[in-house]
Amino acid sequence: MKNQNIPYKIYLSEDEMPKYWYNVRADMVNKPAPLLNPATMKPMSFDDLRPVFCDELIEQELDDTTKLIPIPDDIRNFYKMYRPSPLVRAYCLEEKLQTPAKIYYKFEGNNTSGSHKLNSAIAQAYYAKNQGLKGVTTETGAGQWGTALSMACAYLGLDCIVYMVKVSYEQKPFRREVMRTYGASVTPSPSDTTEVGRKILAEHPGTTGSLGCAISEAVECATTHPGYRYVLGSVLNQVLLHQSIIGLEAKTALDKYGVKPDIIIGCAGGGSNLGGLISPFMGEKLRGEADYRFIAVEPASCPSFTRGKFAYDYCDTGMVCPLAKMYTLGSGFIPSANHAGGLRYHGMSPVLSQLYHDGLMEAVAVEQTAVFEAAEQFARVEGILPAPESSHAIRVAIDEALRCRETGEEKTILFGLTGTGYFDMTAYEKYNNGEMTDYIPSDEDLEKGFAGLPVQPE
Amino acid sequence: MKNQNIPYKIYLSEDEMPKYWYNVRADMVNKPAPLLNPATMKPMSFDDLRPVFCDELIEQELDDTTKLIPIPDDIRNFYKMYRPSPLVRAYCLEEKLQTPAKIYYKFEGNNTSGSHKLNSAIAQAYYAKNQGLKGVTTETGAGQWGTALSMACAYLGLDCIVYMVKVSYEQKPFRREVMRTYGASVTPSPSDTTEVGRKILAEHPGTTGSLGCAISEAVECATTHPGYRYVLGSVLNQVLLHQSIIGLEAKTALDKYGVKPDIIIGCAGGGSNLGGLISPFMGEKLRGEADYRFIAVEPASCPSFTRGKFAYDYCDTGMVCPLAKMYTLGSGFIPSANHAGGLRYHGMSPVLSQLYHDGLMEAVAVEQTAVFEAAEQFARVEGILPAPESSHAIRVAIDEALRCRETGEEKTILFGLTGTGYFDMTAYEKYNNGEMTDYIPSDEDLEKGFAGLPVQPE
Repeated sequence: MKNQNIPYKIYLSEDEMPKYWYNVRADMVNKPAPLLNPATMKPMSFDDLRPVFCDELIEQELDDTTKLIPIPDDIRNFYKMYRPSPLVRAYCLEEKLQTPAKIYYKFEGNNTSGSHKLNSAIAQAYYAKNQGLKGVTTETGAGQWGTALSMACAYLGLDCIVYMVKVSYEQKPFRREVMRTYGASVTPSPSDTTEVGRKILAEHPGTTGSLGCAISEAVECATTHPGYRYVLGSVLNQVLLHQSIIGLEAKTALDKYGVKPDIIIGCAGGGSNLGGLISPFMGEKLRGEADYRFIAVEPASCPSFTRGKFAYDYCDTGMVCPLAKMYTLGSGFIPSANHAGGLRYHGMSPVLSQLYHDGLMEAVAVEQTAVFEAAEQFARVEGILPAPESSHAIRVAIDEALRCRETGEEKTILFGLTGTGYFDMTAYEKYNNGEMTDYIPSDEDLEKGFAGLPVQPE
Repeated sequence: MKNQNIPYKIYLSEDEMPKYWYNVRADMVNKPAPLLNPATMKPMSFDDLRPVFCDELIEQELDDTTKLIPIPDDIRNFYKMYRPSPLVRAYCLEEKLQTPAKIYYKFEGNNTSGSHKLNSAIAQAYYAKNQGLKGVTTETGAGQWGTALSMACAYLGLDCIVYMVKVSYEQKPFRREVMRTYGASVTPSPSDTTEVGRKILAEHPGTTGSLGCAISEAVECATTHPGYRYVLGSVLNQVLLHQSIIGLEAKTALDKYGVKPDIIIGCAGGGSNLGGLISPFMGEKLRGEADYRFIAVEPASCPSFTRGKFAYDYCDTGMVCPLAKMYTLGSGFIPSANHAGGLRYHGMSPVLSQLYHDGLMEAVAVEQTAVFEAAEQFARVEGILPAPESSHAIRVAIDEALRCRETGEEKTILFGLTGTGYFDMTAYEKYNNGEMTDYIPSDEDLEKGFAGLPVQPE
């Protein structure tokens, strides 16, 4: 075993936990494009957004100049229940791979929501509570975000209304029950509780729903119920801001031991984890203080970075949300039923989209059987059973480490282990039984999605 | 919020992790009674036990005089993947209860097995590997122990054969798949792969199995396959020894802050967690250095301490194991189907049984609706969704804290939070739907179990 001066797990003390979130937009020369009002094609103003979002969160959404935003004490106290999260040196994986590379992962799964989503859920719930609101509405797919939000709302005594994609509601009753245990009300989407839901049901009877459709319902629910606002677990600038705590903690922990990563890897669905993990490192790169390779890993079956278009698009199926400029497969794109796990949103965070467009980060798409192979290998030596989403990052971290074995380079690799796979055993069972297959959408499939893109501004 | 000098979570550094397990038997005046050979009613010797257990583990099982037993480096390295486990100050629960009591819990659920079972699984697998064995066999009920053992075996490259109680095998496919992901072979019990299984199937066609029956099958499998031994996740002296790491870490963490608990509470099924948690504190009590109240919490539906007999009994249904002297409900006792979660073994650790018999600890039985009420309350303020088993301890910790609110006493309460409830959502769903009921066996029910006790020696 290699130099053991670095412990298996680096835990910061509570005093060392970040007191500020870092807003990477402040250091970007090319800022992410603003959200547009689909009716006027003009940038959404603070007032335009007020019926949907909490005031303080709109400020954060629109603020692309303030570098450091203080984390309120109440949020820090909540963070202390499950943070600082460990930065783990993957000694056992390194040994198994016989690689000279040094592998670290920031593990965000040690909380009941099972993922990093809680970092933004508590922030959004806190600002809603602070504004005197009664509750919040949201959508959830596999259920990680919905679980995180229900935990945050239970803690603060806030109503939590979750629209859960119907296929997940039926196939993942356990996630649903976790949310209910935390007092959330969970409705399968599309439902007859909203106008947009009734419309979608009328047009597509028997549909099992999609994230885009659940978003439309949650937004309508918030805007038609006084005292409620809508919250979202990824994609938005504010979410990346809250998630910067992942990267800030990781950087503090590495700095303590004088370690500088060469490659930083994260899985990317809407971009919340990847954006949070890389933010402070990207800041150094943007300011010319250091250089890093950043790699976004996405599923080959939902390849928004690697095969999508950089364009303004609808964020939801019902087209009730503002337009966002992002790498997108089109709001009508739905990943094949073959695809297990999350990372199935059609678009990508505007911040990350801009950074990728400017050549500041790379992206690769991987197939799911290779992902589960990496997941199993990782679980057996590192103990943690990873979420399918997180395993995308594991796959590429292993690939990079194996490359180091060939070249003899002692690179330092950092990746984000966003969560655990305890609620994904149906997918693991498929893999264990040798029944998992891969699916890559054809160019024709993608063209159908692109055909639904709105007319672009000027 | 109260004095915040004590952090939310006290983490020891890896250097502060115990280097020895503590053997509480060394400090007991009345030693636990020896295992007896059912054929001769004589104490089992080292040689008697060799066909079933690994050599080094037999040494540990029989050793009631050595106080400190070194933890091999390889086991400590494995421990470092998920230990030291946090000692948490339950600030939020205290505030919610408006109690002057100070509540701490030692959280053992932050690993993929979801419980403390991994502490002994890696030790037992290590000694098997060290002896040059090919693999180990075991039984599992709800699946925590089987999962822990499969993780340990995957890490060491050892075969792992698990007999899983049939009803759990069918109702808990997710646990089964976790074990398979770690490479274990999982067979529903009773099965036709063993003589005792075939016999039980012939006598009780359609039986959904029991722990006692799965133990019989696993023991037979080990003794009929060269290179295999049987391992057990609770009850045995060696298991309590390995689990002493829970109490040793908890004590070190409390000592760092000069905190001395007044009451120490743990759930009790076979006794592995409770025994591990209390061991070093009990040692102080036995040596007259300090005094503590110890409370074992068991389900009212499986009340071995509070309503059982202190007698020699069979450890398994097939009666292939040695006899153990313990508080028992009789090896034929099976908890009502109404009972959710674990803590369903008919007997109790001989060490704990002796300590309870000698008046050194207390025991209470609680009903499951009250347990789930406590679980929900805890989850909503402390974030962690607890296992039903662990929630027995939460129930009594809350009761003691509420008593302090009445009396104004500022007692310090420590309890063991053994695991998470992610694989127990069926039980939570029942509770969420208001469909959970309680069941207390009648005296007549218990008499049936006692009728199966063997003739006692002299």
